[in-house]
Amino acid sequence: MKPLAPRVLAFDVFGTVVDWHGGIRREVAQALGPRVDAGAFALAWRAGYQPAMRRVMSGELGWTLIDDLHRMILEQVLEQFGVHDLGEAEKLYLNKAWHRLDPWPDAVRGLARLKQRYLICTLSNGNIGLLTHMAKHGGLPWDCILSAEVFKAYKPDPATYLGVARVFDVAPTAVMLVAAHQDDLAAARACGLQTAYVERAAEFGADRLKDVSPDPANTLHARDFLDLADQLAA
Amino acid sequence: MKPLAPRVLAFDVFGTVVDWHGGIRREVAQALGPRVDAGAFALAWRAGYQPAMRRVMSGELGWTLIDDLHRMILEQVLEQFGVHDLGEAEKLYLNKAWHRLDPWPDAVRGLARLKQRYLICTLSNGNIGLLTHMAKHGGLPWDCILSAEVFKAYKPDPATYLGVARVFDVAPTAVMLVAAHQDDLAAARACGLQTAYVERAAEFGADRLKDVSPDPANTLHARDFLDLADQLAA
Repeated sequence: MKPLAPRVLAFDVFGTVVDWHGGIRREVAQALGPRVDAGAFALAWRAGYQPAMRRVMSGELGWTLIDDLHRMILEQVLEQFGVHDLGEAEKLYLNKAWHRLDPWPDAVRGLARLKQRYLICTLSNGNIGLLTHMAKHGGLPWDCILSAEVFKAYKPDPATYLGVARVFDVAPTAVMLVAAHQDDLAAARACGLQTAYVERAAEFGADRLKDVSPDPANTLHARDFLDLADQLAA
Repeated sequence: MKPLAPRVLAFDVFGTVVDWHGGIRREVAQALGPRVDAGAFALAWRAGYQPAMRRVMSGELGWTLIDDLHRMILEQVLEQFGVHDLGEAEKLYLNKAWHRLDPWPDAVRGLARLKQRYLICTLSNGNIGLLTHMAKHGGLPWDCILSAEVFKAYKPDPATYLGVARVFDVAPTAVMLVAAHQDDLAAARACGLQTAYVERAAEFGADRLKDVSPDPANTLHARDFLDLADQLAA
């Protein structure tokens, strides 16, 4: 049976809509120069993200905005890379590099098409302020910015996926999560959402392409947002 | 001393951005025909809003979305106007008239100009889903939709005004509340926000114009959003 058309498309953001690795690498190189491997620094900063969220979800830390988790991790990574001379203003600016990430080349055009036919929103662990500044920076035409901050829980907590359905007063199956990460999609599927995987092979850099094989459990598999718009007749 | 330019403009919505009286009157007339005074019905529906929110804030009711408060009040007002024959589907549709309110004629153009220079968001007691559908309906170009639903408190609770500053990581004085209601603005001012009053003399209908006198306590007083954009050099 053909699945019902979704009414709401909820997008993962880091890696799915924007190129975090390219953006962070560029800003780290600008801030720290040739003394550090900026690509490795970006990977280390991002690698601290899941463990930091686990500290929050376990109750070890109280509810914490991703801006503040990014800052905690930045301190660790600067230490790890032997950088001891960055001033407070420079750290604040560098930490907000996550607000200035560029969209993948197809993202804005794809979202504009999808917005004509569907309600499009974010569903990201990034905080509302971060996602709003990113949308202004990149021209992302969201109908609504939903974040872990609204639900006081990070993905993959079911409260986030089911929260989207509740906010828009629709059944979970009327929501489709769009993401470049199979684990995020699997958690959404377990809550009854439809799922679309988007290939972002260069998420970790063009020199370390990731596996983008289809998982037949997803409702859709798309090369990029333009392909997704084609498949969703938008 | 000239106040610092705000960075964030937070807009009250019902009455300030959209014409609730005109929209509700039109939809009530369509749904119920000449047997009721649609303008009076709209006023009665809106008049139930503050008492309903007080029942939530007093703890008598648990946290309730405005969509659900609107529905509770609708039942009372239908009873009051002697309407007993509306089916469930018709009630559901009529209740969502609040999602289909039209912007005042200057609103979209004014917001588009202000968005070039400022971060523009809603700060409404309306729920996120309602505000998102309204924005799609009217083409309102919000950077972000903030609602009582995010803060789990209705205006004039300080948690809402201060919540805007916290979400965007700025001082309260860097936020300007824009509203057509002096009581909303006074509550925001008490939290340290800047305030702009906007004249919406016909909020309750063209045949019952309201007082739109300036209050010198506000940072700005504007005829409409285009005048506000002029004054804010946007």
